[in-house]
Amino acid sequence: MDTLFFCGNEVIRMLLLITYDVNTETSAGKNRLRKVAKQCENYGRRVQNSVFECIVDQAQSVKLKALLSEIIDDTVDSLRFYYLGSKYQTKVDHIGCDKGIDVDQPLIF
Amino acid sequence: MDTLFFCGNEVIRMLLLITYDVNTETSAGKNRLRKVAKQCENYGRRVQNSVFECIVDQAQSVKLKALLSEIIDDTVDSLRFYYLGSKYQTKVDHIGCDKGIDVDQPLIF
Repeated sequence: MDTLFFCGNEVIRMLLLITYDVNTETSAGKNRLRKVAKQCENYGRRVQNSVFECIVDQAQSVKLKALLSEIIDDTVDSLRFYYLGSKYQTKVDHIGCDKGIDVDQPLIF
Repeated sequence: MDTLFFCGNEVIRMLLLITYDVNTETSAGKNRLRKVAKQCENYGRRVQNSVFECIVDQAQSVKLKALLSEIIDDTVDSLRFYYLGSKYQTKVDHIGCDKGIDVDQPLIF
């Protein structure tokens, strides 16, 4: 991992990209989908239907991953995590509607 | 960008993640969706419904982005590109079904 999360006492935030496919053939599946989206909304911004960009520190990253893994049914659902580091501004590009996080500006929570 | 694409005469490949939302309310939209997926399949592997992981060099990355931008309707569709560099093996994590690209092994085309 090329990201340093801590520098002295400073907590370093990174871009964690979360993508998911949740099987919604059943009502239980639809419920899981809602729960996954709700948890992701607590930590980041939805940029596409099943894609969230989250600016998190290491502790938040670990916590969010644990929360999501408890929600999904790992026999039919899929969760992917992409760690884009703290210098993510030049690592994201967009074409089309809704730009999501402005990659030219640091995100301030 | 922290990725060096060329080192001497060696072409460096990187992981380019492509996510998309294509508005399929019309038959033209469904057609665009098929075309986007088909182009992505030429360069990488579908790991979720609207998520492709592509191992490409700089020239391929530029070409693919240009091809996709010609297909979509940028007033209603969304394409996002995430550049995860050449050392992507530790930057991808997965929970659930279908692991996609094996992130522990270099991808050989």
